[in-house]
Amino acid sequence: MATKKFILAEKDIPQAWYNVIADMPNKPMSPLNPATKSPLAVEDLYPIFAEELCKQELNTSDAWIEIPEEVRDMYKIWRPTPLVRALGLEKALATPAHIYFKNESVSPVGSHKLNSAIPQAYYCKKQGITNITTETGAGQWGAALSLAAKAFGLELAVYMVKVSFHQKPYRRSIMQTFGAQVIASPSMSTKAGRKILTDHPNYQGSLGTAISEAIELAMSTPNCKYTLGSVLNHVSLHQTVIGLEAEKQMEMAGEYPDIVIACFGGGSNFSGISFPFLRHKLKEGKDIRLIAAEPASCPKLTKGIFQYDFGDEAGYTPLLPMYTLGHNFSPANIHAGGLRYHGAGTIVSQLKKDGLLEAVDIEQLDTFKAATLFAQCEGIIPAPESSHAIAATIQEALRAKEEGKEKCILFNLSGHGLIDMAAYDQYLAGDLLNYNLPEEEIAKNIKELEKII
Amino acid sequence: MATKKFILAEKDIPQAWYNVIADMPNKPMSPLNPATKSPLAVEDLYPIFAEELCKQELNTSDAWIEIPEEVRDMYKIWRPTPLVRALGLEKALATPAHIYFKNESVSPVGSHKLNSAIPQAYYCKKQGITNITTETGAGQWGAALSLAAKAFGLELAVYMVKVSFHQKPYRRSIMQTFGAQVIASPSMSTKAGRKILTDHPNYQGSLGTAISEAIELAMSTPNCKYTLGSVLNHVSLHQTVIGLEAEKQMEMAGEYPDIVIACFGGGSNFSGISFPFLRHKLKEGKDIRLIAAEPASCPKLTKGIFQYDFGDEAGYTPLLPMYTLGHNFSPANIHAGGLRYHGAGTIVSQLKKDGLLEAVDIEQLDTFKAATLFAQCEGIIPAPESSHAIAATIQEALRAKEEGKEKCILFNLSGHGLIDMAAYDQYLAGDLLNYNLPEEEIAKNIKELEKII
Repeated sequence: MATKKFILAEKDIPQAWYNVIADMPNKPMSPLNPATKSPLAVEDLYPIFAEELCKQELNTSDAWIEIPEEVRDMYKIWRPTPLVRALGLEKALATPAHIYFKNESVSPVGSHKLNSAIPQAYYCKKQGITNITTETGAGQWGAALSLAAKAFGLELAVYMVKVSFHQKPYRRSIMQTFGAQVIASPSMSTKAGRKILTDHPNYQGSLGTAISEAIELAMSTPNCKYTLGSVLNHVSLHQTVIGLEAEKQMEMAGEYPDIVIACFGGGSNFSGISFPFLRHKLKEGKDIRLIAAEPASCPKLTKGIFQYDFGDEAGYTPLLPMYTLGHNFSPANIHAGGLRYHGAGTIVSQLKKDGLLEAVDIEQLDTFKAATLFAQCEGIIPAPESSHAIAATIQEALRAKEEGKEKCILFNLSGHGLIDMAAYDQYLAGDLLNYNLPEEEIAKNIKELEKII
Repeated sequence: MATKKFILAEKDIPQAWYNVIADMPNKPMSPLNPATKSPLAVEDLYPIFAEELCKQELNTSDAWIEIPEEVRDMYKIWRPTPLVRALGLEKALATPAHIYFKNESVSPVGSHKLNSAIPQAYYCKKQGITNITTETGAGQWGAALSLAAKAFGLELAVYMVKVSFHQKPYRRSIMQTFGAQVIASPSMSTKAGRKILTDHPNYQGSLGTAISEAIELAMSTPNCKYTLGSVLNHVSLHQTVIGLEAEKQMEMAGEYPDIVIACFGGGSNFSGISFPFLRHKLKEGKDIRLIAAEPASCPKLTKGIFQYDFGDEAGYTPLLPMYTLGHNFSPANIHAGGLRYHGAGTIVSQLKKDGLLEAVDIEQLDTFKAATLFAQCEGIIPAPESSHAIAATIQEALRAKEEGKEKCILFNLSGHGLIDMAAYDQYLAGDLLNYNLPEEEIAKNIKELEKII
């Protein structure tokens, strides 16, 4: 176990977020109003999100958006995060590749989610909002938003996907310790929840359903807005602090990554680490591969189709142009709860369509094997989500070895797994399974999509 | 939630540990061989511990002991740790006191314990040892040693106090993920365990019993040594990196603490943060108060007596001059498992006897109340152990407010509570209790002590 850290000073926390849309050759197609099928205007989003976030969401021209001083001040609680050369892992793999990871697990809630939770809570507060709602899968986003809501004095209700509510009770306790209200989704507290519970009484929930419930509560509560932890453009925007810091740190290391890897659920940490590097590919033709690592049981980028679809199960959101498995897709109960989402954000989807990024899908058992090796080499137990990035990194490092090439690989360690130990327990006991997704199930869901547009 | 961090560079990780014994006006009395009652020679310890650690244990003359380069290299995985001005907590308390905390929770296992786990594993490895044993309460020490053992290629067996084994299953999983073997104590695998299980079949274990089992296994296994996470002088020595860094950071902040506070189990994090500051009191007469915060249910410093006693329940250790509740004392099942120990280390005990430090005892519910306030003000959920230090800090900050004095208080945040959320769950549900320790129980145990010497 040997390690080399690259540390920035507080003054190196970025002053602005990077909005990749401004530099994209083909902009993402516009979200559509589901009733009229006409392109969404920024005002159409105001009932759902804080106005400043709506403006960021549809901003296609400004490459840089200033980070408010109050947000930067709160970033200082744990940022800048370290960049680490994974010498232990390199040695274990006997690879000529150089492996670096950006350690976003050092945030007080253990993941990168705080990067967007803070500005979202900040902009809501600034607009005079008093209550916010959200959904959460594994609970990383919910935990981050609970902290941010408390910091800005907002009341928060979190719909937590039922399977994670039971698999990860301690993320629920974290949210409650920060003062949030947590409801297992599907619940009886919304029309969307009641409907799915009536149709499927044992439904274990999905991010899509939890989003429907959180939107419904926000729309029916005075002075209340909805917030989302992934998928949307403004979330990706906020997360670019990861890649912007990593860029400076790679410079300190005297290297530039050939490959940038992150796990993929809706796209928040993937966008965060990769977009700042992508800009040099877009603007200067830099040769760099971006790889999104998704679960084999929820393979929207590798097996989904590009199509307008809803962001939630009940169909409350605008229609988004995305790689999707269909908004009714019910993912298997894998432990990487944060990756159990049917669609990819619109930016990532457009980039994938344009061949500007790649995707791989990883089986659950391979992610835990990679995670355990990483823990024993680097001393950090990774989140099940982040372990997808580690598994993809190991694949690339072994390929580099086969080819005898000294590749430089950078991946994002989006979170630690200290609150996911029940999953490790099952893995160590040999009780974990892979979930092979039948092609027919994908085909069935995708057929449903044809009705949409 | 506002925060101000003071960050050191890697080169500021201390080059040497501080051995306070060299500067003490009255040295601790010598440990005794329990059979002969004569002072222990360093060779008497060789069968139990690595030789270098035995030498450190009995070194009363060298104030500084060099940190091996291999150990400093591994410290770099997470050190230097931040010093943080707790502006949020200050504001919530409306106190004129300035509150700082040293954040040892940022280590990859979430606590300060790695500071000693690494050198202990290192010295064992250097001596050619292949197997080590230890005990753990809440699992913080066991988790740290599991990481260190894996890093140096040692096999590790951990006896984990049974009540914590059940309360904190995920610390067990952490140890197992790093490759350690974990046994609930008391167990049937040792004479000491079998005896206590025969006498008290439902005994939930204590650190004292787990130590007996770990020593017994080490003594009966070839090429195997025992390691301990607290109480002993060499452990306190390794932990002084905390206070040595904090000293430099307080200088960066332009302040000097009037009061240094840490929670107290056997003394490892208390010694670590306070001894470097104590040296200025001993050598330059600096006016500074040191406060050890212990659980009301295990109050060795506030209600125990100073007396030779065993460090373990079965009586395998040397006799140590300590404040103790008696080695047969069976502490209540509080969640701060790391503080459930009958005695205080010999250095701390001598300092307490000489009036060089103070102790307070805190009720369990007060610690969780303090912990929740701290989490909501500073964004970090503290370990139940560390919450004792927070509660004591709040007491002092409120006293400063009453007296209208601008005191400077420094406390050690020894670990985070992300793996202790079951305890927070119980607290939030109103299911947690205080444990009032009957005076007669203390008196009975202390009476037993008279038989010893």
